[in-house]
Amino acid sequence: MDQRSLAELRNFYASFGLLPLPDGTNVSETALGGVPALEVAVPSADADAGTLLYLHGGGYVIGTARTGVPLTAALAAGTGLRALSLDYRLAPEHVFPAAVDDALAAYRALVDDTDPARVVLAGDSAGGGLALATLLAARDAGLPQPAGVVTFSGWFDLTLSGASLTGKESVDPVFDAADIREYADAYLPDGAGAGGLLASPLLADLRGLPPLLLQVGSHEVLLDDSTGLAARAAAADVEVALEVYPGSAHVFQHQHATEPTAARALARAAAFLVHRLEQDPGPADQTTRSAHV
Amino acid sequence: MDQRSLAELRNFYASFGLLPLPDGTNVSETALGGVPALEVAVPSADADAGTLLYLHGGGYVIGTARTGVPLTAALAAGTGLRALSLDYRLAPEHVFPAAVDDALAAYRALVDDTDPARVVLAGDSAGGGLALATLLAARDAGLPQPAGVVTFSGWFDLTLSGASLTGKESVDPVFDAADIREYADAYLPDGAGAGGLLASPLLADLRGLPPLLLQVGSHEVLLDDSTGLAARAAAADVEVALEVYPGSAHVFQHQHATEPTAARALARAAAFLVHRLEQDPGPADQTTRSAHV
Repeated sequence: MDQRSLAELRNFYASFGLLPLPDGTNVSETALGGVPALEVAVPSADADAGTLLYLHGGGYVIGTARTGVPLTAALAAGTGLRALSLDYRLAPEHVFPAAVDDALAAYRALVDDTDPARVVLAGDSAGGGLALATLLAARDAGLPQPAGVVTFSGWFDLTLSGASLTGKESVDPVFDAADIREYADAYLPDGAGAGGLLASPLLADLRGLPPLLLQVGSHEVLLDDSTGLAARAAAADVEVALEVYPGSAHVFQHQHATEPTAARALARAAAFLVHRLEQDPGPADQTTRSAHV
Repeated sequence: MDQRSLAELRNFYASFGLLPLPDGTNVSETALGGVPALEVAVPSADADAGTLLYLHGGGYVIGTARTGVPLTAALAAGTGLRALSLDYRLAPEHVFPAAVDDALAAYRALVDDTDPARVVLAGDSAGGGLALATLLAARDAGLPQPAGVVTFSGWFDLTLSGASLTGKESVDPVFDAADIREYADAYLPDGAGAGGLLASPLLADLRGLPPLLLQVGSHEVLLDDSTGLAARAAAADVEVALEVYPGSAHVFQHQHATEPTAARALARAAAFLVHRLEQDPGPADQTTRSAHV
């Protein structure tokens, strides 16, 4: 990825930050654990409901807190949550694990002054992978887990082992396998380390993670990242729901204003988060929760 | 499986047919395509809403239409559907593909006089596998697909290839791998044919199948049947949702009267079926529907 194509890609991707927001949404600069972030306040937000930390996509290389704002705002509107979109550091200027360090610092600051049962995470693409990495890093640092996590077309496997990487190339309108490899190389420039568990949560022991909702389109080279993570999470006794949207493309949720399928997916994601925040630790949840400790 | 243990197993399993039903439920004998069935009429049933065909579990060897009635009635109560529990023929007296022949005959009769967009299928364990086999057989016979299918702990792989078959033995309170092998041997006594696509829908090309909801507990040797089918369905551009309930056991939905997790799973299953029956073929569904033709 040369400087010129990187600048072009970042410039192109910035357009996602210009997608319309719910009426009355206020976006303001803030920081969380020393990491810059945008606070996304929708009119229906209720500070007591809880906090959503959103991690934008862009292959760990492109995107900004701002490109994450439209999906952050959509989830905030659907849930009534206070919401933050994080400006974690990007490769190639800041390679792995800079993004994980930033996301963990932000998460630590969040759970330092918020009941973790009132905190949820969401992210798309690399941001989905980063959300999972944050859960693993938090677990290993002895921090509590959040109430639940939603990922849109999460990128969980930087070893690029999924059969869909080539199997879905002909129907994926966004990426081919070479694109994905280029992002992986930028984030992990020594060519090794892709198997590191914070780069490839697919390979990690997922025990103790909170309930997950994984949404993915079937027209994606990254399809197997989500089906594979669902299987790994299930094997590790994690509560996981996988939703596959046939014919949909990478992070199709961006099109929620015009595509009913995308609107439906976002509504389900919001319902999942609300359900997670409403949980009393009943008999079914005690197993899960005790595993978080 | 000798005659004595078979009789004991069937007798033991019959107790599932005695689980309480919603107040006012009426169960009556009928037939569908020449196959005996029980019609399960809950007070809220609306004949215009549509019809649920339920396929009971029991490894293709035990169980009856009656043992399927409690889950059939629970889904009927949750959806307002007319519902039928089918008495398909069992092994070892009637080996593969007798069960598929019966289920297809019943399904054919159903869609002969009901709009297929008002027909849904559900089944548990072997009944879930049989539901998938019915979809494949219907597709290959040129019959229309139903509006949607729910499976509880479906058994989709009679080649027994799942890692969970041994990996989850120590936590599965119902089965070990040897039990599963015994059922497979009874249904497919020649020791071959397990790879036949109507015995092991996991191995089939799933293109053109309707939306699927696959529920499974994480404490099951059959866990990978559902995670694997979700991945296969996704690869084939089928709309699929997988829900994994951590710590839950095989067909935990039977305990819905006392276990909140089971009640929640059944409520979600009913909501999925209702949503499927409410679909207008909008832009998002046209792709799926055209693939059914």
